[in-house]
Amino acid sequence: AAQEAAVRAQAEAVRRLKQDKADPDEIAKEVAKLLQMKAQLGGDEGKPKFVLKTPKGTRDYGPKQMAIRERVFGAIVSCFKRHGAEVIDTPVFELKETLTGKYGEDSKLIYDLKDQGGELLSLRYDLTVPFARYLAMNKITNIKRYHIAKVYRRDNPAMTRGRYREFYQCDFDIAGQFDPMIPDAECLKIVHEILSDLQLGDFVIKVNDRRILDGMFAVCGVPDSKFRTICSSVDKLDKVPWEEVRSEMVGEKGLSPEAADRIGEYVQLHGGLDLIERLLQDPKLSQNKLAKEGLGDMKLLFEYLTLFGITGKISFDLSLARGLDYYTGVIFEAVLLQQENEHVEELVGVGSVAGGGRYDGLVGMFDPKGRKVPCVGVSIGIERIFSILEQRLEASEEKIRTTETQVLVASAQKKLLEERLKLISELWDAGIKAEMLYKKSPKLLNQLQYCEDTGIPLVAIVGEQELKDGVIKLRIVATREEVNIRRESLVEEIRMRTSQP
Amino acid sequence: AAQEAAVRAQAEAVRRLKQDKADPDEIAKEVAKLLQMKAQLGGDEGKPKFVLKTPKGTRDYGPKQMAIRERVFGAIVSCFKRHGAEVIDTPVFELKETLTGKYGEDSKLIYDLKDQGGELLSLRYDLTVPFARYLAMNKITNIKRYHIAKVYRRDNPAMTRGRYREFYQCDFDIAGQFDPMIPDAECLKIVHEILSDLQLGDFVIKVNDRRILDGMFAVCGVPDSKFRTICSSVDKLDKVPWEEVRSEMVGEKGLSPEAADRIGEYVQLHGGLDLIERLLQDPKLSQNKLAKEGLGDMKLLFEYLTLFGITGKISFDLSLARGLDYYTGVIFEAVLLQQENEHVEELVGVGSVAGGGRYDGLVGMFDPKGRKVPCVGVSIGIERIFSILEQRLEASEEKIRTTETQVLVASAQKKLLEERLKLISELWDAGIKAEMLYKKSPKLLNQLQYCEDTGIPLVAIVGEQELKDGVIKLRIVATREEVNIRRESLVEEIRMRTSQP
Repeated sequence: AAQEAAVRAQAEAVRRLKQDKADPDEIAKEVAKLLQMKAQLGGDEGKPKFVLKTPKGTRDYGPKQMAIRERVFGAIVSCFKRHGAEVIDTPVFELKETLTGKYGEDSKLIYDLKDQGGELLSLRYDLTVPFARYLAMNKITNIKRYHIAKVYRRDNPAMTRGRYREFYQCDFDIAGQFDPMIPDAECLKIVHEILSDLQLGDFVIKVNDRRILDGMFAVCGVPDSKFRTICSSVDKLDKVPWEEVRSEMVGEKGLSPEAADRIGEYVQLHGGLDLIERLLQDPKLSQNKLAKEGLGDMKLLFEYLTLFGITGKISFDLSLARGLDYYTGVIFEAVLLQQENEHVEELVGVGSVAGGGRYDGLVGMFDPKGRKVPCVGVSIGIERIFSILEQRLEASEEKIRTTETQVLVASAQKKLLEERLKLISELWDAGIKAEMLYKKSPKLLNQLQYCEDTGIPLVAIVGEQELKDGVIKLRIVATREEVNIRRESLVEEIRMRTSQP
Repeated sequence: AAQEAAVRAQAEAVRRLKQDKADPDEIAKEVAKLLQMKAQLGGDEGKPKFVLKTPKGTRDYGPKQMAIRERVFGAIVSCFKRHGAEVIDTPVFELKETLTGKYGEDSKLIYDLKDQGGELLSLRYDLTVPFARYLAMNKITNIKRYHIAKVYRRDNPAMTRGRYREFYQCDFDIAGQFDPMIPDAECLKIVHEILSDLQLGDFVIKVNDRRILDGMFAVCGVPDSKFRTICSSVDKLDKVPWEEVRSEMVGEKGLSPEAADRIGEYVQLHGGLDLIERLLQDPKLSQNKLAKEGLGDMKLLFEYLTLFGITGKISFDLSLARGLDYYTGVIFEAVLLQQENEHVEELVGVGSVAGGGRYDGLVGMFDPKGRKVPCVGVSIGIERIFSILEQRLEASEEKIRTTETQVLVASAQKKLLEERLKLISELWDAGIKAEMLYKKSPKLLNQLQYCEDTGIPLVAIVGEQELKDGVIKLRIVATREEVNIRRESLVEEIRMRTSQP
């Protein structure tokens, strides 16, 4: 409306210049300005141009994308169910105060709802905080659940790499007081199963422990008050080189260069049981209570992972920090390694596809009496996996079906709409997936073409002679073979011919 | 924070009064005020009391609710797929302007997001407008799709009756230029299939046509400019009696009493083909072009519904109006009738569980050149169905399983954690749904109790003697029978014993 007013003012200015018989050049200049303004408004009527798009950082899923998405969800859900998880759902928004103070530096990325009277609300930022709120609110001290839903972050989107402002998380968490590292090991087993199942190529799961990090910071001479902010710096090591992280620590965050260098030595370490054993003997770390606890549990974890037979893909990595504030113990992150067929010599990480860890204090933050419920969980970052599978499918030119229709009900002659409607109704009522064209007298060629285009394997053709004979002509699209089937046997015949082997 | 500041100011006031040795009554009064303010803040520390709840009009779904929800979704999705629908998804929010001017009087119920810089966004109010935006944006002129997702309305919630601010819609729509009433008839068939399948009790699907309504308004003497607002009044007839609707029309909306009375005669009519035939002969209605078109199509619709064999549940009802602005042709609404076992003599409608209609102009509102894509669709209102099924389940005391776990991996003796981990890992890798207790040495009794509580049908018991013999003891929970199974046959045995018949 403001733009329209500006156009009107400009038109009035032009009119006045003409009336005043002003310099033709000046009139021409002002007319050009007017035309440009009108063009921006999208048309002579001055009707504002409507922007036809989805909000920044979001996208629609068309039928093909949905087919991929459902395939991925299928694999993930069946893994979660294999591990005996229940499922819950929570609202897409929470009271604003529920999210306050849970995400550290990332809080600025939370979407708030407009105050339209009533409660102040924010869109959920992850599924972990709503889960903790759910546990505290319902006084649940013991649950193994999954939750698949969209979360919202006002981050800079990078859509080709699968980074969106609205994106799915697939979370599996185990809450309850149990013996050390048994649920933690199961979470890693789950990541291993899902990434193997989806065949995304080689991957590695990095593991660390917040207690080892805190112990490391302590023995390196980081003051207590700087643990969290230095931890945030370490978290950047998967994206930027050590030199930059070091200068952030020393420059922006005021850490002594000596402390930073000591950290620098630790964070380049990664390995397996051998490294854990070595650090348990480390003269400084072994003196720190937290680090010793963390290392002891890490050793136990590796023993369990050995029994699961998955240590080949696990790397104990002292540079892994994870951004979120709420972790208290084991943390982990799964990274896809560059595909070999892309002919790159080094194995470069193409990004994290799963992450998680232990957060024993979060539920207590919601409980009126501060009662703690220890939790450990994993979140599968589905969007990056979608991008990879989408790109792969496009490259392969594999044709993907977007419906499950078993048969098209067609007719060879005109004026058989009623007979098609009767037959398709019979098929639907018998549970057969059937379609027909919504035309009174469609051409047979168009009906057959529709099957080719959409992958429908069978055509049930109604014809006058066949109706008299009590049969339906069944055409197999792939072979063009046609057989007459007695009407009462049609359902059985379609079932047989379209059953999955 | 503002409240805290007020408490501090009050405390300071009390301190000063005491210092000034003021009147003890006045001190006491101010102290009482201070204590009350502190109590409101929730505790002596002055720490604000945290409210542990979901936002107004929303709720969590626990595992039991989710089990019901997935059952209902399963029935609905399998119907949509039976009719050959593809599936799409759109973002939970849209540009605010995308929703502007689509919902008439209901627009005030739209949730807006806070302006945090960038685009102005609103949460989707239904799935129909995002669908139309999707079609126009991608220049799709022909699609049959379903979409199941949450929508948001700042309405007055009535949660026990299944009315929420965040709720699911399950939409099926057919877009494209087709022969009259064939897709419309399919939408009604779908509602009939779903409501029959879910066994919610008796129901009726009311049908009308916006063109018949508009023709009726015209012949009753309603001025053109009042069509929409009088239509909104008629829409209330399922909730309030005619007298109230009439007085709204005459009083608030300035309609002449004569016109209102003429409408009153029409809107009490309902029936089937006979009523359509009668109205086609109606001296006034038959002279109106719109009404005649609408009645002609209604007749065609009933012919198709007769072929589908579902006219028994369909009622052509002139009082059906539907609130939303965008309908242009057939409209319909499915209503559950009171259960007979509730011993109520009259059949009273317990509310709408599905609705829809034809909206041929909506996509054109988004297309830069106004190109129209005719659409017809149905929306299943799932929340009311959930409420009914939830209440029914609670009443029946039927035990509902919330996991699909086939077997619990247990041990009879202590110190067999490693053996349990090895076995459960083998089972998971073979695709068996298996759980174990996260304890080093759980008691056998606790392990068996867990199976009773959660409905796990089998227990695979690891024991020292069995390990030596290369067998696992398999216990059938229901019968307490125990059999030794060779370890290499265990997977097959579990599959066999837990396969659905």
